[in-house]
Amino acid sequence: MSDREDVLREIDRNFDVAVNKLLELIAIPSISSEPSGEADIARAAEWLKAELDAIGLPAKVVPTKGHPVVLAHSAAQLGLRRPCLLFYGHYDVQPVGDPAEWKHEPFEPRIVEEDGVHRFYGRGASDSKSQLWTFVEALRAWKSVHDDFPADITVLLEGEEECGSPSLPEFIEAYREELECDVAFICDAEMWSPTQPAITTQLKGLVHEKVTISAPNPDLHSGHYGAVAANPIRILSSILAGLHDEKGKVTIDGFYDGVSDIPENVRAQWAELAKEPTLIGDVDLTGGVTEEGYSSLEAMWGRPTVDINGITSGNQGPGERSVLPGSATSRLSFRLVPGQEPETIRSRFRSHVEASLPEGCRVEFEGAGGSSAVMLSQDSRFLKASSRGLEEEWGMPPVLRGTGGAIPLVEQVNRRLGAECVVIGFILPSDAIHAPDERYDTERLRKGVRSWVRIFEEIQSHAEV
Amino acid sequence: MSDREDVLREIDRNFDVAVNKLLELIAIPSISSEPSGEADIARAAEWLKAELDAIGLPAKVVPTKGHPVVLAHSAAQLGLRRPCLLFYGHYDVQPVGDPAEWKHEPFEPRIVEEDGVHRFYGRGASDSKSQLWTFVEALRAWKSVHDDFPADITVLLEGEEECGSPSLPEFIEAYREELECDVAFICDAEMWSPTQPAITTQLKGLVHEKVTISAPNPDLHSGHYGAVAANPIRILSSILAGLHDEKGKVTIDGFYDGVSDIPENVRAQWAELAKEPTLIGDVDLTGGVTEEGYSSLEAMWGRPTVDINGITSGNQGPGERSVLPGSATSRLSFRLVPGQEPETIRSRFRSHVEASLPEGCRVEFEGAGGSSAVMLSQDSRFLKASSRGLEEEWGMPPVLRGTGGAIPLVEQVNRRLGAECVVIGFILPSDAIHAPDERYDTERLRKGVRSWVRIFEEIQSHAEV
Repeated sequence: MSDREDVLREIDRNFDVAVNKLLELIAIPSISSEPSGEADIARAAEWLKAELDAIGLPAKVVPTKGHPVVLAHSAAQLGLRRPCLLFYGHYDVQPVGDPAEWKHEPFEPRIVEEDGVHRFYGRGASDSKSQLWTFVEALRAWKSVHDDFPADITVLLEGEEECGSPSLPEFIEAYREELECDVAFICDAEMWSPTQPAITTQLKGLVHEKVTISAPNPDLHSGHYGAVAANPIRILSSILAGLHDEKGKVTIDGFYDGVSDIPENVRAQWAELAKEPTLIGDVDLTGGVTEEGYSSLEAMWGRPTVDINGITSGNQGPGERSVLPGSATSRLSFRLVPGQEPETIRSRFRSHVEASLPEGCRVEFEGAGGSSAVMLSQDSRFLKASSRGLEEEWGMPPVLRGTGGAIPLVEQVNRRLGAECVVIGFILPSDAIHAPDERYDTERLRKGVRSWVRIFEEIQSHAEV
Repeated sequence: MSDREDVLREIDRNFDVAVNKLLELIAIPSISSEPSGEADIARAAEWLKAELDAIGLPAKVVPTKGHPVVLAHSAAQLGLRRPCLLFYGHYDVQPVGDPAEWKHEPFEPRIVEEDGVHRFYGRGASDSKSQLWTFVEALRAWKSVHDDFPADITVLLEGEEECGSPSLPEFIEAYREELECDVAFICDAEMWSPTQPAITTQLKGLVHEKVTISAPNPDLHSGHYGAVAANPIRILSSILAGLHDEKGKVTIDGFYDGVSDIPENVRAQWAELAKEPTLIGDVDLTGGVTEEGYSSLEAMWGRPTVDINGITSGNQGPGERSVLPGSATSRLSFRLVPGQEPETIRSRFRSHVEASLPEGCRVEFEGAGGSSAVMLSQDSRFLKASSRGLEEEWGMPPVLRGTGGAIPLVEQVNRRLGAECVVIGFILPSDAIHAPDERYDTERLRKGVRSWVRIFEEIQSHAEV
């Protein structure tokens, strides 16, 4: 026990240093889905390699056909039979979107006190730089007290999670032996509430698509030709509006093929978590359309969806312009459940749009890759150890939850390496991930780091029994 | 006769100078609907004032609550009883849109030879700087030969036609006496074909609207909340897709109130102009939806419409972003026919959107002003003189046509001053007005100038009879 208290004290002792380092990392605009982010992605990878090197986890920056992976291993302890733990995080971030919508600078984080909470704002503050920092700092503190890690350790930090992890399958294939582990801890998920932790056992798959409808003509004067010539916005609106029927079901032919209904025991488990809410966290569900026959949690975690993420065409302002645009573009994403394959869904969507296209108009699609959904076992020894460790830190047992978010690595590790996965995380709906003024706070960072220490303890004591 | 030949020769003699001056004018980015255009609007007004002064039409730049009007009059000829002709043009231009879609610089016009045609490209090249230049140069040439104008002349050049002429009614009220005239020649319309001129006798009215739908939440992660929270793109798409029924009729309650069907004689006249075309000029109508029961020309010239001019929301790229946007915006315009009032249509549209809005969502509208439709008499003496003059220059009688375009001044002059209006113009669908690479050519400019000289002759000889 005293050793563990020593590690917790070490976390406190070093906390300001750890926070400042994290702010350094957040200040690097490592945006993976925009070409302009490339140099900063490289900078972030090198920065992380140096930090891992410094705490006794010799790291390398592994190039891929996309963005590099940072991969580190603890030194082999000869003669010691102990489990190997892999930790996964990602250091890339979403684009900023419209900078005018941010009250805080997206890449100049500093601590601000708001109602007694010490917060910091920035793209990546919660998704996912603070998350990866919880286990890096926990490993550092443990090593510093014990002069050893709690197990054999592999750290894998990815640089293209926010664009669908296109290089991950190839990387995992190539580094299969180095990645062998007993469990992969994936730290990129939400808590259940500000006071109750969670372990995510069901994750959706993800497919992104960009669709551009073009009329037979370039831009025209809408006064002259609006009454007779094809308007791509009108065509696209019609297609988007028709993607759901009046019951909130997706109308794409074959979209639900292979989808099993949510198992009764899972429905029962989720039903206990929440009465049908009108608010989830501080997200207001008024005006939303939930698929008929499903609760909000069931729809969010267990039902496949199509979401429209963006649209653009014609006059963007500020002034008036009587234009009949030549083309219109929308960006969509599909969230998949077990039984749906990314490429099948992509091709069914494309057929659906093509079938809706008026004569003479053209459509172009852009999009590749994607991930399938994953359902994890709730019985694994590492999940149980994690559950006990989290309960010890937070005073409440973790919720076993689903998520609408995708973490492509989980599917890869689970399917390709056959390793157990435990998906844990310390973010909240109120962190504004993927949105302006993304944020995090130092107290959750501290409790996140402490959570890992308690999980390490549980794994060790369980192994000793 | 010899005098008229002299004027035509004078046009040829001065032609290079006239073209170069016009290019100077096109080079001024006098965009009226964007705040950045203000200084250039002022510059264009002063440039025009100087040109009018120089040809014996003392001009003033009249400030309005919006952009200035350039107003010029010929010196009163004492003792001479002759008609007063007002010439209207506008010197403001549409915004450029996306500069990347232009192959030519929008404000650096120069003559380029393409297949024997001497063309110049630029925003405003055809709409409407070349148009106003036809009558200015015709008046100059006439004055230079005759040392007098063909009649009492007023020139009115507007600076906010492209944003709906918001200051025009107030200006016309204030300058009512100065604007009194026997006929207003409005030079801002299309020819029927490259070889056949036209006089426009029916013009639509115009209302612009901007509508923004907001969800109860700011931007969210679409993976987490897409299945349950309101998506403004989905709501807006639905509203836009629902603006027309399966017969191509506008579904807004009361939209057609007060609209009379197109008179049989007008239908017959238009039916003679074109068999039901699949191409109008080089505009391809494939994929377009024409209101059931009407020919293309009837829909374009005689039926009210709503056109979607722009849409924007969420991820605009280049990368993927799993965002559920907080709001979505569209820009629309309504083209009105006689019997529809701008403010009534605006308010019916707003009610329609409000009624379609899901609980918890908000809508904001932006838009003011607008113009009503106009039907002009086909029997006026000035229209007949213009018709003969145009036939003489082009070798074919002008088509009496309608247009989907709006010229707010026509309504103002016709209704408020009670003057006859003759709407003539020398642009073509292939001029790409309101679109990238707007263009014009020197040969049409020359024939436009010559057309006015022939019309002046016809007015004079008619007056003498």
